[in-house]
Amino acid sequence: VPPGGDPPVGRVGDAGELALLARIARRVGPSAGGAVVLGIGDDTAALAPTPGTLTLVTADALVEGVHFRRSTSSAADVGWKAMAINCSDIASMGGAPTAAIVSLMLPAALEVAWVDGLYAGLTAAAGAFGLAIVGGNLAEAPVVVVDVTVLGEVPPDRLRRRSGAAPGDLVAVTGTLGRAAAGLLALEAGTRGVAGDAPYAAPDGTAARAIESQRRPQPRLRAGRTLGALAGVHAMIDLSDGLALDVWRVCEASGVGVRIDAARLPIDEAVPVVAGRHGRDPLDVALAGGEDYELLFTVAPAAAAHVLARLKAEAAITATVVGEIVTAASGRVVRVAGQDRPLEARGWTHFHLEEER
Amino acid sequence: VPPGGDPPVGRVGDAGELALLARIARRVGPSAGGAVVLGIGDDTAALAPTPGTLTLVTADALVEGVHFRRSTSSAADVGWKAMAINCSDIASMGGAPTAAIVSLMLPAALEVAWVDGLYAGLTAAAGAFGLAIVGGNLAEAPVVVVDVTVLGEVPPDRLRRRSGAAPGDLVAVTGTLGRAAAGLLALEAGTRGVAGDAPYAAPDGTAARAIESQRRPQPRLRAGRTLGALAGVHAMIDLSDGLALDVWRVCEASGVGVRIDAARLPIDEAVPVVAGRHGRDPLDVALAGGEDYELLFTVAPAAAAHVLARLKAEAAITATVVGEIVTAASGRVVRVAGQDRPLEARGWTHFHLEEER
Repeated sequence: VPPGGDPPVGRVGDAGELALLARIARRVGPSAGGAVVLGIGDDTAALAPTPGTLTLVTADALVEGVHFRRSTSSAADVGWKAMAINCSDIASMGGAPTAAIVSLMLPAALEVAWVDGLYAGLTAAAGAFGLAIVGGNLAEAPVVVVDVTVLGEVPPDRLRRRSGAAPGDLVAVTGTLGRAAAGLLALEAGTRGVAGDAPYAAPDGTAARAIESQRRPQPRLRAGRTLGALAGVHAMIDLSDGLALDVWRVCEASGVGVRIDAARLPIDEAVPVVAGRHGRDPLDVALAGGEDYELLFTVAPAAAAHVLARLKAEAAITATVVGEIVTAASGRVVRVAGQDRPLEARGWTHFHLEEER
Repeated sequence: VPPGGDPPVGRVGDAGELALLARIARRVGPSAGGAVVLGIGDDTAALAPTPGTLTLVTADALVEGVHFRRSTSSAADVGWKAMAINCSDIASMGGAPTAAIVSLMLPAALEVAWVDGLYAGLTAAAGAFGLAIVGGNLAEAPVVVVDVTVLGEVPPDRLRRRSGAAPGDLVAVTGTLGRAAAGLLALEAGTRGVAGDAPYAAPDGTAARAIESQRRPQPRLRAGRTLGALAGVHAMIDLSDGLALDVWRVCEASGVGVRIDAARLPIDEAVPVVAGRHGRDPLDVALAGGEDYELLFTVAPAAAAHVLARLKAEAAITATVVGEIVTAASGRVVRVAGQDRPLEARGWTHFHLEEER
């Protein structure tokens, strides 16, 4: 019998909704306490917001066969990631996550043990990111869908938006770019049995770390709160779909242009290693690969050195200046080897794969 | 060109995610204003909670092929219902809905016109119920999933829970029971072409009203707020899965038993008409049919007359006493024709159909 206290009971359709709900409530544990007035077990959850703060709310879903495969990601990885990608959105506003609602769609033939694993990942992530799972919903569907809504809080003066970038601002990103995209390339290659199976069957350290980043993203919560508190930080977004598309969103919201310098991009060490094996251009993987879950922000030049130092001191993260905001009329460009190229709004989007992953 | 300003553009996969998001944002309109600091268009929405209130949050999803068929419900019906069923949960806590996040899973082959219709229903319901659509998410999936999260507010002293029912309390329900379940029977019979096609092809008024209830439920928001403000109202829940299962939930949460008097149930006039045609027991349809979206509450006997009068005056709704709360040791029973029967926790649940609909 596992730590949760109850053994797996076959398939979801054998357990039924009521037993499954009770099982989930036992695994999540009592969520009332602190700001949570009512957790799992009533028609709604009830939370006491911190006086004077704004409530942030966002939702993001992982769909089987679209965002993950059960053959290459464990249930716990899926749970972790569903929580992490939502917390990344809270981080990008300068906020702190407080509570999550988990809406699950499950096939009746799914093993209950998979749901247990999913909740192991969800609760581990909730613990790591400091929020409570306060409710949810169960429904039947032909594929697994894990749709998580996360609430967060931020004092009004610390809220950062996509808008607010001004010509002259420097553009900076936390961490490195392209690691998760490199991990996905490695993961898919291993699955398909192509392009050098051996290194992926027993991955070298670089590929293994990249795969781990793809499966278990780490939202930049401390960095987001640090940036929200600092003067001169004008606009912020998390890098979920790739720098090219996400900085395009900042430009759209702010009514500005941008000039990215490819030579300054902090391309992750995994990108050249993995991309080369698949005949992919490392710059392209870094610009349009997606799933970095780093933060991109714009900062007034006079504040930049201070902001980067505070990020290092308070969030233990290195941020790198990769370009500057220009006027809308100056366009959106990326400078590569001394030449300006249009920065296309390419990246991971649904319904189209505008950039082949 | 329809009122939204842009003509349908074929299928979701032709439009792509970015164009579809922009189209939805145009249809929802500017949602910032009032308590909404940031609506659609950033990484998260941001809301300013009313000082001193608790934040309520709930999610409920409609899955194609499970909760609706595109052949028998219009897209606008699905949108309305997805919003209404969540607002019903807010009503059951004594609260008022404030904001919604709409997470959509769509097949690439779906017509964009269907998404337009869905948003017509979502925005109509949001307008009717007094909340703003402040954000959402789009993802690809093999079937349509409309997963809505609704936030609400309630002063702490007006919060009502499933717990709190005490032996001696009367049990009352708003409105009538079984109408939506009768509507579903009529709808499915018409679809299948069985059991008297003619009346369903051109439904008589009773069946048509029942079908309308099934497609466009009306959450009891005014009644919920009225009940939350009244002393003596101890426990509350909305009737989503049928009285039998939902009162069972109140008993579980409150640690009590219940005694329901079948003769007092306000069975909707559509139930005998429709149930008879399908050889179904009207009492069974009323107890376990589900989707009433009425409120069930328990009230101290001394307060009952006042509470029912206030409901009539402030929410224009008739509530009916249908039984009483007893001790847990006295069990959960329904009295039918002078005989006590066990009240089984039957009703609409997922993965099992514990009650055939």
